Amino acid sequence: MGYDASALPDVTGLTIGIIGGTGDQGRGLAYRFALAGQRVLIGSRDAARAAGAAEEIAVLPGVPAGVITGGGNDEVSSASDLVVIAVPWAGHEATVAALRESLAGKIVVDCVNPLGFDKHGPYALAVEHGSAAQQAAALLPESRVCAAFNHVSAPLLADPAIDRIDLDVLICAEDRDAAGVVAALAARIAGMRGIYAGRLRNAHQIEAFTANLIAINKRYKAHSGVRVTDL
Amino acid sequence: MGYDASALPDVTGLTIGIIGGTGDQGRGLAYRFALAGQRVLIGSRDAARAAGAAEEIAVLPGVPAGVITGGGNDEVSSASDLVVIAVPWAGHEATVAALRESLAGKIVVDCVNPLGFDKHGPYALAVEHGSAAQQAAALLPESRVCAAFNHVSAPLLADPAIDRIDLDVLICAEDRDAAGVVAALAARIAGMRGIYAGRLRNAHQIEAFTANLIAINKRYKAHSGVRVTDL
Repeated sequence: MGYDASALPDVTGLTIGIIGGTGDQGRGLAYRFALAGQRVLIGSRDAARAAGAAEEIAVLPGVPAGVITGGGNDEVSSASDLVVIAVPWAGHEATVAALRESLAGKIVVDCVNPLGFDKHGPYALAVEHGSAAQQAAALLPESRVCAAFNHVSAPLLADPAIDRIDLDVLICAEDRDAAGVVAALAARIAGMRGIYAGRLRNAHQIEAFTANLIAINKRYKAHSGVRVTDL
Repeated sequence: MGYDASALPDVTGLTIGIIGGTGDQGRGLAYRFALAGQRVLIGSRDAARAAGAAEEIAVLPGVPAGVITGGGNDEVSSASDLVVIAVPWAGHEATVAALRESLAGKIVVDCVNPLGFDKHGPYALAVEHGSAAQQAAALLPESRVCAAFNHVSAPLLADPAIDRIDLDVLICAEDRDAAGVVAALAARIAGMRGIYAGRLRNAHQIEAFTANLIAINKRYKAHSGVRVTDL
């Protein structure tokens, strides 16, 4: 049956919240979703910083007027239909736990990669729950947690000169319908496909693979990603 | 600098041993290397079975006369320049440990994926050394161990009707020169590139990612692999 973009649900009406939207990854995703015409809310612990980041993105070339604003994390979580967690791993547990009520019933997309760095470069950190996504699922029992957008290059996302990013967003989830929504969201970024890649218990290696992509980027001077073949 | 096939070493003169060459993965790789004109030795605990598998591959379309034979694991390891470990995970430790002397000084390519299966499908097994490749490195301190060929689809490798397999072989290694030789070997199979993807401590997630590819294959009815983008 292969990958069929025409079978994806319509997500154009969804408001996308980005928790950690002032960081590189969150800001880059916010820009790309806004560019696609999606309504985007940037969240931060500091609402003023979030508003500032939203104002900077709003004036980038191609962003429709009025699609992006910023606010505090809880306010953004409450007002969004789907929420992306893009905080540093060190702040993941506390930030996610604090949003349990405002994220209840919603699709939550975790794109956090628990990595360490030493003189030999990046490596995967051991995570008690297995992965950041599983930690989020444990902290948010009433949400529909997926892992996705772990491998998208922040510099590519942020560069207005790049109008297409050819890679696949690997999605791990227990809830197939939620995975379908996330796949549709991925497809809103030109060049991307969202591919269901297994249950949450298999999210660890997708998060950890970011260490390999960093090694590849260093060796080949690239902004690498993954494309799944034969789909 | 990107990926540059012209910078790869010449490996056409190397004899490739495949330990576990009677299994699906080993047999498929043996066929593809033989098809490329590489000298191939199939190894098995049972030398007669190895010889039988080699005879079957030797008569497949396109395999040059006289390039493939079979024998016992130790004999094959001793007679080969580069040895691929393609045994089931359950037999990995004992098989590899027994070949320490015959593999000394050689490049050893581990393509074993420690996976478990239950009613929810495949999942990554915890490995004391971190990964199969690190276990091989610990058991073979005098060998140059790499992880590679973890994701190549056995059915695609084995199918004589398929003359090209478009995917990347991700290579983890401490020894960059060894990784280069393995990259050149990967490039002997039409459609494949060998990409250096980090140190051995980052091999676990590449092995474990095979569980995701199995989930993808089930969901999309595919024989999926990975292509690294922006290279």
